[in-house]
Amino acid sequence: MHLTSHTDYALRLLMMLALEPDRLHTIEEVATRYAISRNHLMKIVLTLVQAGFVDSVRGRGGGLRLAKPAAAITLGSVLRATEENFTLVECFDRQSNTCAVTSCCAVKGALHEALAAFMAVLDQRTLAQLCDSPARNSRMRQLLPYIPIAVEAPPRAARTRRRAD
Amino acid sequence: MHLTSHTDYALRLLMMLALEPDRLHTIEEVATRYAISRNHLMKIVLTLVQAGFVDSVRGRGGGLRLAKPAAAITLGSVLRATEENFTLVECFDRQSNTCAVTSCCAVKGALHEALAAFMAVLDQRTLAQLCDSPARNSRMRQLLPYIPIAVEAPPRAARTRRRAD
Repeated sequence: MHLTSHTDYALRLLMMLALEPDRLHTIEEVATRYAISRNHLMKIVLTLVQAGFVDSVRGRGGGLRLAKPAAAITLGSVLRATEENFTLVECFDRQSNTCAVTSCCAVKGALHEALAAFMAVLDQRTLAQLCDSPARNSRMRQLLPYIPIAVEAPPRAARTRRRAD
Repeated sequence: MHLTSHTDYALRLLMMLALEPDRLHTIEEVATRYAISRNHLMKIVLTLVQAGFVDSVRGRGGGLRLAKPAAAITLGSVLRATEENFTLVECFDRQSNTCAVTSCCAVKGALHEALAAFMAVLDQRTLAQLCDSPARNSRMRQLLPYIPIAVEAPPRAARTRRRAD
């Protein structure tokens, strides 16, 4: 039993945006600091923007930020947006189910109850609660060092030379 | 988020053995009645025998039966035997984890709490409870008709002819 890496990375991204709400974060930066795939992260950002958790500011100096307060984002709501489905067993999906006894089998009910208990815990945990310890936040920032990469334009002479080549 | 088909099929098999405790069931029969893969079922039986849920009686007329009372088998204990792992996200597995902030990130704790709530429900549900409704049990047996296949030995003359070939 596992969550998708889509959810895993989405939670990491949201934690970073909640930890450092005062500035925009680029996908490049988040991918580098967590050492995760930039391409994978791009897809996750799209999901989170569409679900209303993240704002993407375009243009030079643009980047990502939370689209609403961290206190308004529960882990449960994130999982509902990022998990492909919650089809614990085949009979959870009426379309593809082939089990003949679904209509009277009690296993499904027990698993639905367990899933509800799982989601109930996550529906009570907000991003803000996960970032409510200054000591833990400080440690997280230390472990995810931010080293801005200065992209300098080449000197004028060099640019001229290159163009002449 | 989903359970493996290993768990799905294991639950189906255990339900059938609990529903009809008075006789042995062959893998062939269970696979046919549920219309599931016989090969897949063989692997699951091995897991369930090793975990002490199922007895496998060898020889002619042999087959499968519950190794202990259905009231002593919880869904939680079955899942622990049949799921490969409960690595909800990468940091649940210390060996393969690459996330730098695991030591201070609060996401892991919230997910562990949710998983504990999930398992707590299933630890309170026994196979016997899932089969405690005579009406539901009767309906399940109707939906899983048992048609014994008579395997007849070929007549003596035919056997002799074959040997002569």
